[in-house]
Amino acid sequence: MRDLNDDGALGRQMHAWLSALFPIVRSITGPGVRQTLAYLAEQLPQLKIHEVPSGTRAFDWTVPDEWTIRDAFVADEHGRRVIDFKQHNLHVVGYSEPVNRWISFDELNDHLYSLPDQPDAIPYITSYYKRHWGFCLSHKQRQGLKPNNYHVVIDSDLKPGMLNYGELILPGRTVQEVMITTYICHPSMANNELSGPVVATALAQWLTSLAKCRFTYRIIFVPETVGSIVYLSKHLEYLKKHVVAGFNLTCIGDDRCYSYVPSRAGNTLSDRVALHVLKHLDPGFMRYSYLDRGSDERQYCAPGVDLPIATIMRSKYGAYPEYHTSLDDLTLVTPKGLEGGFTALRKAIEAIEHNYMPQVTVLGEPQLGKRGLYPSLSTKSSGDAALVMMNLIAYCDGAHSLLDIAEIIGVPMWELIPIYQKLNEHGLVMDLNG
Amino acid sequence: MRDLNDDGALGRQMHAWLSALFPIVRSITGPGVRQTLAYLAEQLPQLKIHEVPSGTRAFDWTVPDEWTIRDAFVADEHGRRVIDFKQHNLHVVGYSEPVNRWISFDELNDHLYSLPDQPDAIPYITSYYKRHWGFCLSHKQRQGLKPNNYHVVIDSDLKPGMLNYGELILPGRTVQEVMITTYICHPSMANNELSGPVVATALAQWLTSLAKCRFTYRIIFVPETVGSIVYLSKHLEYLKKHVVAGFNLTCIGDDRCYSYVPSRAGNTLSDRVALHVLKHLDPGFMRYSYLDRGSDERQYCAPGVDLPIATIMRSKYGAYPEYHTSLDDLTLVTPKGLEGGFTALRKAIEAIEHNYMPQVTVLGEPQLGKRGLYPSLSTKSSGDAALVMMNLIAYCDGAHSLLDIAEIIGVPMWELIPIYQKLNEHGLVMDLNG
Amino acid sequence: MRDLNDDGALGRQMHAWLSALFPIVRSITGPGVRQTLAYLAEQLPQLKIHEVPSGTRAFDWTVPDEWTIRDAFVADEHGRRVIDFKQHNLHVVGYSEPVNRWISFDELNDHLYSLPDQPDAIPYITSYYKRHWGFCLSHKQRQGLKPNNYHVVIDSDLKPGMLNYGELILPGRTVQEVMITTYICHPSMANNELSGPVVATALAQWLTSLAKCRFTYRIIFVPETVGSIVYLSKHLEYLKKHVVAGFNLTCIGDDRCYSYVPSRAGNTLSDRVALHVLKHLDPGFMRYSYLDRGSDERQYCAPGVDLPIATIMRSKYGAYPEYHTSLDDLTLVTPKGLEGGFTALRKAIEAIEHNYMPQVTVLGEPQLGKRGLYPSLSTKSSGDAALVMMNLIAYCDGAHSLLDIAEIIGVPMWELIPIYQKLNEHGLVMDLNG
Repeated sequence: MRDLNDDGALGRQMHAWLSALFPIVRSITGPGVRQTLAYLAEQLPQLKIHEVPSGTRAFDWTVPDEWTIRDAFVADEHGRRVIDFKQHNLHVVGYSEPVNRWISFDELNDHLYSLPDQPDAIPYITSYYKRHWGFCLSHKQRQGLKPNNYHVVIDSDLKPGMLNYGELILPGRTVQEVMITTYICHPSMANNELSGPVVATALAQWLTSLAKCRFTYRIIFVPETVGSIVYLSKHLEYLKKHVVAGFNLTCIGDDRCYSYVPSRAGNTLSDRVALHVLKHLDPGFMRYSYLDRGSDERQYCAPGVDLPIATIMRSKYGAYPEYHTSLDDLTLVTPKGLEGGFTALRKAIEAIEHNYMPQVTVLGEPQLGKRGLYPSLSTKSSGDAALVMMNLIAYCDGAHSLLDIAEIIGVPMWELIPIYQKLNEHGLVMDLNG
Repeated sequence: MRDLNDDGALGRQMHAWLSALFPIVRSITGPGVRQTLAYLAEQLPQLKIHEVPSGTRAFDWTVPDEWTIRDAFVADEHGRRVIDFKQHNLHVVGYSEPVNRWISFDELNDHLYSLPDQPDAIPYITSYYKRHWGFCLSHKQRQGLKPNNYHVVIDSDLKPGMLNYGELILPGRTVQEVMITTYICHPSMANNELSGPVVATALAQWLTSLAKCRFTYRIIFVPETVGSIVYLSKHLEYLKKHVVAGFNLTCIGDDRCYSYVPSRAGNTLSDRVALHVLKHLDPGFMRYSYLDRGSDERQYCAPGVDLPIATIMRSKYGAYPEYHTSLDDLTLVTPKGLEGGFTALRKAIEAIEHNYMPQVTVLGEPQLGKRGLYPSLSTKSSGDAALVMMNLIAYCDGAHSLLDIAEIIGVPMWELIPIYQKLNEHGLVMDLNG
Repeated sequence: MRDLNDDGALGRQMHAWLSALFPIVRSITGPGVRQTLAYLAEQLPQLKIHEVPSGTRAFDWTVPDEWTIRDAFVADEHGRRVIDFKQHNLHVVGYSEPVNRWISFDELNDHLYSLPDQPDAIPYITSYYKRHWGFCLSHKQRQGLKPNNYHVVIDSDLKPGMLNYGELILPGRTVQEVMITTYICHPSMANNELSGPVVATALAQWLTSLAKCRFTYRIIFVPETVGSIVYLSKHLEYLKKHVVAGFNLTCIGDDRCYSYVPSRAGNTLSDRVALHVLKHLDPGFMRYSYLDRGSDERQYCAPGVDLPIATIMRSKYGAYPEYHTSLDDLTLVTPKGLEGGFTALRKAIEAIEHNYMPQVTVLGEPQLGKRGLYPSLSTKSSGDAALVMMNLIAYCDGAHSLLDIAEIIGVPMWELIPIYQKLNEHGLVMDLNG
């Protein structure tokens, strides 16, 4: 394990990726998804990009037509664009059908979306499964509109195409898997969603740099909901057999406190690890219920799917004011926030990788002194280290995993792992997991 | 399921039955029990009345001789009745043996029972298993007695006869049973006990009016303690095999908050349903322990009997000041109080009847929109309904009953049942219970 | 069961034994251990004394050489002893190697131990497994030393010898065992440790005086750590099969509140009994975690050993200021404190002996009245006794032990045992344990 670099380079790197991806016009299908995946593949040469045609059935769903948008605006009688998709891609309702007409102010109003409570924010609205068109704008901007006729133009296509997703598999020493999943279907918003893909990319690079891990790592980049459903419909049996833990990455780049949404079961290895890591990293983290879910855990944890996927976030989707508006921008997400997100996930993954099933090899307490393992007791802190070592040994009974022991003795896994490894080198503990 | 009628007719009906039954001189045996059962049979034509002769052994008990009381009084030297059973049937100690003597004031005093702390109340005293006689009176009345000789007359019989009880069985689609039990052995007191029999009668009429239920319903009217012991001794093996839930009805007609006494096991279906219903009906309900028991749950939950019988009450026996006195009268029990008792039991029974084991029929979240099931999101409350539906589906995994789900998602069964039924009509959920 | 004598004789007896043992120069091996065992054998003729030679391997440990100390002092240039082992045997570091030299004040200082925070206390220091010599003294005394040369003399031996321990086995009606263990390796300190051996001695005398018990009692007196490891290495398989409960006795003679350290498993019979007894004896008792362990439970509860040994104390080792200093003397431990310790252990042992598995012999509630068992209800306290009896019967279902029932109904075992015995005499309950 390498130490985290403290110079902030990783956070700045992730923020740079995020800034490059930010302007792309993404939706659940279409060229924006492909541009996004192509950019990620530049950082992750092993990333495989897949496509599934419109009309493909997946569980209860059907892959929709592909949406391409080239331009969209509302212009006044002087031809001035009063709402312009080129200025912000949130200005058009996602999956809007094409339109090119002069309409009355009243009719226009039925197709406008704004937030009176957040007058500076452009809301994010979509209509994937019902034919519709509309424009989003700040409430301030809306109040400036004159009650005249307007020219509305949406230059879009809705026609059979592809749903795309990316998949990166890093084989480990076993076929048991840890799964990282994130989504790539939102237009220009930073925390929800681009923080997820860039942290996933950094994790993939870090995992690639390691010597072969115990677990195989599966990292996927999918459009939310229909994308995860398509992915599950292709791999469900394999995933159910092999995935031992996993995390959904979203809203993981702002500077606020950590949040946690459990898996539906609530007591999977992923949940236990997430709670352990967050408790020690940030005792004030927000602990949500599965009833507060709202992202792809809805699919991964659905009855009959039941994958052990928990969610570690900074500010939870739906629980921060900038969520699903133009305020979720490149200032809300910071290098430090992204690096904090990466750190939590990395510590969670390390806890899973090193979750040994330790058994002490002698009966009674081992005599640490004769091995030079018992630290000198002259200072308070060395006394504490000795106590942690003795407490660890006291529970190395072959029935408690290292994570169980970390919880019992109240010490974070990242402090326990090197102590375990030292004891293991002296032959005092062995790993029943092999 | 019919909606509850809100016009109060049911409560007034129950109060009218109760008022008609109130004056009857009941004890654990004798003509009063038979008159009571005869009146109930007028409301419930299917009620079967059984008899068991005095001297019959039942577990550790023996059916006692039958007690008949015709008159009882204490008269002064002028022949004036200073205590008169005809004025209130609580004036005589239950199961008093016959007496007809002039006695001193001192001797009389040894046979008088009053409550100094409740000077207006006539206490309720019995001596079923030890030959005795006595009079009960208000402490105020007692203090007015002159220290003279008195003529005490109790015109009663104690001779072999019958113990009677009523039994109503409504066959369901299965032989599994829900049991409702109540007692009919107390003289003129309204909450303990007549509220129990009249609510049981209303429940029986309601259940009779329904299309065939899933469960068979067994409703019994027995003298307390020896009656339930006799009943158990005749049916124990059958009941242990078939009763899945049940409630003891007592003290269920006053206007105060609800109370709950668990079964001995504490975690039966009856307990879970009672807690669920009361939590949602009346969050301030009183939750007692089995150590606070004091009615026929003592027999139904005894070791080796172990029926799943819990108790839903308004004011718990022993815990309201009018209990076991003449103050437990027709004003303490009200139409509204009785209807509240009925409502709690009806909701409990409906929760048992509709406690499906639901399984969603698709993998991943179903696409509710294409079925018109996803409510429009334009208002807050329709949003909530959609959330309840999504949360219900999220736990329809074939391992959680509808009651389990109601507890997990924090929604009362009576709101969940129609949503389940709508999903079932659309083929999205099925009941693994068949 | 005899009633506890309230005249304090037992406490005074224990304090007298303790006072006789106090001056002996004990260590983990050597003549002091043998003198101590010889004195205990005078009180307990059945005590067997065993010896194990230096060099014997036991699990991860080796029996050390035997240490004999005859004299030790630091003298000034006038031959005056400024530190003198003859004045207090804590003045010499345990297992000090021999020395006889004139040294500088600076060199002396490197071999002196005192406690600046407790300037009147001589600390207790040992160096069993690393060759070393040193003197302990009060900080006050140390500050009075002049910066001159000193003559240091330690007249000690470190050579192959024996490790000794005592063992007393009182056969019961079954081969299942309750184990009492205490240690005999500390020089002149009263609470830690002599309170343990004297309370163990009183318990052994009491158990010997009883008619044959259900359980076999094994009482051992061992040097701490290496002694318990040696003992376990000789008897582990037998103990694992037969010991059902046990207690480690230490720090059980002062007047302060009770303390409890659980076994590692935390839910053994020993733990449940200890918590039950202490809760009822002293609701303010200190409840520690196994992470606070520090005596021979470290060996008895080690992984693979896993004996059900819990610890009942007065002030916990390490948690009272006099611990491991000369202030832990004959005034800290009192006759009343020792008797309180004895009482807690005796009640714990009685709870284990009488932990029946009771089953009521009738179905439904038994009719207590016909057996004269139902107390008259005329007074509040007799009402309570009746309630306890009814509550006891209510849980005599063959699935709850008497201790389970005591916990459920909130009554101490020592009140429940005689009620059980009365019901058993009437044939109303039987013990499924036989």
